[in-house]
Amino acid sequence: MDALPTPPATAPNSGPSTPDAQKRIDYLAGYNLDEDILGKIKDDLVDIARAAGQMMINADLTVDESDTKKNSSDRVTSTDKAVEKMVQDRLRSTYPAFGFLGEEGFKTGDKLEDKPTFVCDPIDGTLNFIHGFPNTAVSLALTVDKKPFVGVVYNPFRGDLFTAVKWQGAFLTTATGLTRRLPISPIPKPLPSLNEALVAVEWGSQRSGPNWALRTSMAQQLMTDKTAGGAMVHSIRSNGSAALDFCYVAAGQIDMFWEGGCWVWDVCAGWIILEEAGGMVASANPGDWEPTLEGRLYLAVRGAKRAEQEGVVKQLWDMMGERKFIY
Amino acid sequence: MDALPTPPATAPNSGPSTPDAQKRIDYLAGYNLDEDILGKIKDDLVDIARAAGQMMINADLTVDESDTKKNSSDRVTSTDKAVEKMVQDRLRSTYPAFGFLGEEGFKTGDKLEDKPTFVCDPIDGTLNFIHGFPNTAVSLALTVDKKPFVGVVYNPFRGDLFTAVKWQGAFLTTATGLTRRLPISPIPKPLPSLNEALVAVEWGSQRSGPNWALRTSMAQQLMTDKTAGGAMVHSIRSNGSAALDFCYVAAGQIDMFWEGGCWVWDVCAGWIILEEAGGMVASANPGDWEPTLEGRLYLAVRGAKRAEQEGVVKQLWDMMGERKFIY
Repeated sequence: MDALPTPPATAPNSGPSTPDAQKRIDYLAGYNLDEDILGKIKDDLVDIARAAGQMMINADLTVDESDTKKNSSDRVTSTDKAVEKMVQDRLRSTYPAFGFLGEEGFKTGDKLEDKPTFVCDPIDGTLNFIHGFPNTAVSLALTVDKKPFVGVVYNPFRGDLFTAVKWQGAFLTTATGLTRRLPISPIPKPLPSLNEALVAVEWGSQRSGPNWALRTSMAQQLMTDKTAGGAMVHSIRSNGSAALDFCYVAAGQIDMFWEGGCWVWDVCAGWIILEEAGGMVASANPGDWEPTLEGRLYLAVRGAKRAEQEGVVKQLWDMMGERKFIY
Repeated sequence: MDALPTPPATAPNSGPSTPDAQKRIDYLAGYNLDEDILGKIKDDLVDIARAAGQMMINADLTVDESDTKKNSSDRVTSTDKAVEKMVQDRLRSTYPAFGFLGEEGFKTGDKLEDKPTFVCDPIDGTLNFIHGFPNTAVSLALTVDKKPFVGVVYNPFRGDLFTAVKWQGAFLTTATGLTRRLPISPIPKPLPSLNEALVAVEWGSQRSGPNWALRTSMAQQLMTDKTAGGAMVHSIRSNGSAALDFCYVAAGQIDMFWEGGCWVWDVCAGWIILEEAGGMVASANPGDWEPTLEGRLYLAVRGAKRAEQEGVVKQLWDMMGERKFIY
């Protein structure tokens, strides 16, 4: 393969970048925003996420028959739809000038605009929700200029609330009400190589074809013993929610999350939470250090020394060789 | 392959079997036990598990360097050893006549005896523990006649306490202090086929050779689209703790857990919790409806109609064909 491009010296995804105060003020003013308004939006999204969580907890899944979308593993419940309607109604009444992009209302061709836009995944991890497996969350975000500025991910079943506002840090509030700054270890552990990494990989619902072959062969190669040609990562975890995987990487509980094929609403809130916790996002495909929110290709890496982050990204890309996800 | 044997009409693993009161009394009396003593043992194991949980939470992982055992993914920390010592000391002083089998003290050839024996996994999910991923637990059990009679699995990081006593049901107490009987849905959802199942598969630390090839090819086949020859299960979850996987199956949050290669201490407590919640355990290898605790081959299935449980077991065994784990 061609030599991989050099990562930019000041990668936009390399953790909390804090330009000086006046630059931040000017930038936000261009969108009729300021840092207080972002904080207020975060608080509003938390209130809405808690209301959504209550709807998820109240849902009677013996009645809430789910529909299949593309196939039996691609599901939507009436609770997904009801939550998204509630979220959209509440945000529209408070922030009528802002855009809105939600999983359930999405139509092919819908794109983020530059203007402040709310991005909503009413239930991320719908399969877990249907099965009662308590790793599922509502994921709400605000983008500005197609980048995540505010993120809220709330898992009502475990009581975990992850939040972040750009330039203001990332936080986890647990069921006990205790709030701590992320990552949980203020001094990140070393991340010397894939061999020491705990990696999240999810399986999606597209279960044949070239993307499926790449996903499964890479997972196997990541785990296989070095003597048999693998990277011998510590292990792989599959939790069933991309939004929460981003948050676990932000917390430093998982080192990396490699994912192709999910959507902007799956990752938008988690992305700013990760970034504010010192993490970075590269592309799931080799060579792209600056993936976009809508690009459907993500390699999330937890906070660590920049050289270590780049090192594990390059190691994983090298393993992929010429192979790429096609979405 | 040969025709699979017919499952026994009254399978010992087919859920809570409650022989009449006098038979239970006579059986337990043969081991100097009664149902009150079993309840007391459960309470003692809960106290010890909570003390173990406090040790896990207090562990400073920046200091608690872990050792590798067979390879970089097979780990033990000083907390594993300290917890097992505390558990063994406390149980030995209260129940001096009982046996003890613990992961850290285990030597090749150690076997369960018929007499009442405590089985201890001080930290199940050690890799998660090392990474700070909060899916890890202390797992404590009592066996009688080499079968699990009492089980306690406690995850201090999420506050989940799973318990069961034979003939007395299985329970989950959450961080809020609320206790509920398992399974969570009193009327289990249908389990018509693998196609509707959420399956747990773990990866272990043996990452090459025939067992690895079987594990990875089965996982792939379970998930692959039916048009491409797979079973198209809803998805696979990999949580990194066999003890908790058994509990999630007991709760009905995951439908099945297919696992070869783990040990009696990984599954002993979870097994009685599952059994008392209406679940069953077949072998991970085709044909054996009555696997033993020490056999290292487990296929846990949640509570459902017996015919449905047998149906999904046979479907998975059929997929394996002539292939078997060798442990």
